[in-house]
Amino acid sequence: MEEKGISLAVIRRLPRYYRYLGELLENEVVRISSKELSEKMNVTASQIRQDLNNFGGFGQQGYGYNVEYLYNEIGKILGLEKKYNVIIIGAGNLGQALANYQDFERRGFVIQALFDVNPRLAGVSIRGKDVYLIDELETYMKEHTVHIAALTLPKTKAPQIASDLVKWGIKAIWNFAPTDLNLPSDIMVENVHLAESLMRLSYKLKTHEEAMQKKE
Amino acid sequence: MEEKGISLAVIRRLPRYYRYLGELLENEVVRISSKELSEKMNVTASQIRQDLNNFGGFGQQGYGYNVEYLYNEIGKILGLEKKYNVIIIGAGNLGQALANYQDFERRGFVIQALFDVNPRLAGVSIRGKDVYLIDELETYMKEHTVHIAALTLPKTKAPQIASDLVKWGIKAIWNFAPTDLNLPSDIMVENVHLAESLMRLSYKLKTHEEAMQKKE
Repeated sequence: MEEKGISLAVIRRLPRYYRYLGELLENEVVRISSKELSEKMNVTASQIRQDLNNFGGFGQQGYGYNVEYLYNEIGKILGLEKKYNVIIIGAGNLGQALANYQDFERRGFVIQALFDVNPRLAGVSIRGKDVYLIDELETYMKEHTVHIAALTLPKTKAPQIASDLVKWGIKAIWNFAPTDLNLPSDIMVENVHLAESLMRLSYKLKTHEEAMQKKE
Repeated sequence: MEEKGISLAVIRRLPRYYRYLGELLENEVVRISSKELSEKMNVTASQIRQDLNNFGGFGQQGYGYNVEYLYNEIGKILGLEKKYNVIIIGAGNLGQALANYQDFERRGFVIQALFDVNPRLAGVSIRGKDVYLIDELETYMKEHTVHIAALTLPKTKAPQIASDLVKWGIKAIWNFAPTDLNLPSDIMVENVHLAESLMRLSYKLKTHEEAMQKKE
């Protein structure tokens, strides 16, 4: 299976396919045509075929897609066959919200522990996950296998903690701090920049209103 | 100023430019060349020039960009000159995390109130924002101007609340529920699908590990 040169846009869409197929599975749908899938997902049928052809197809002329098979195959492409140990750095509201998502665990992302600078949070347990003082992070990293660290920290603190984590062996960071981390290229980073998402919404509102005014 | 046909990729980058320029402003940088900006942002200089040319340029040969001017102009493009009244539906950890972000207010997104089904949360106040019972939402919408509703709800509840909000006049929804809302096309929606973001990270980890194994 050739996965070279897969565009970022395809990679953005794959988890969405996975989510839809999961919903179809829950509703006990056995197969679906690319046309039906495209209507449900608001993407053209040829786009879907093209996206999936990047990974070798999976469809069958005249039959469409077998939902469970396609769901499992996309899961494999996304690396969801494995279990990932996740720690959360920053046990404020956002860190606690992440620790409370049961959906993550279903997909193999197992939250192991939270860390915070606030001594009042240390010792607390969130859905069975302990909160440790940040000073204990180095020892924790030495004694446990951690695949992913989620950073729910202020932007002033995130870059230093991120580079410490890299020193202690982390390979992937899920960054919620509103800043870029500038880590070595072999460290995988996925950013969730909430303020930027909100600005895209105000951009859409503004351009939509302008278009409406022109029509009048 | 011609803004037709601006690609999604450009719209994705604009808030990032805005964030960087904001950081430069905080550090009292007066001007910057597209080369410097590109190095800082990890985007090519020609990409930056091309992106900004969509909105009429702003750069000056041999001078580069005036940071404050460019910051303000991008702010205008993003619709950040206005104030937006925001309500949050779902006052759990995630809703409370959003209510606690002071960064949003600095950019003109003013959180006015939160709503929840849980009567124990109703009457509570988060950073001065009151939490109301969800039953009061319809009346609240009639008596207040609300520009944006953030949905931090389970996926089973979000579609119904979203369509109620549309009925009561909402024009923009910031959706954190892991489902698509299928609203009329004149309602602006920006999704933050956290599980999908996490899957993109596992995809990156998996493909990176595979590439490393091939090298060995």
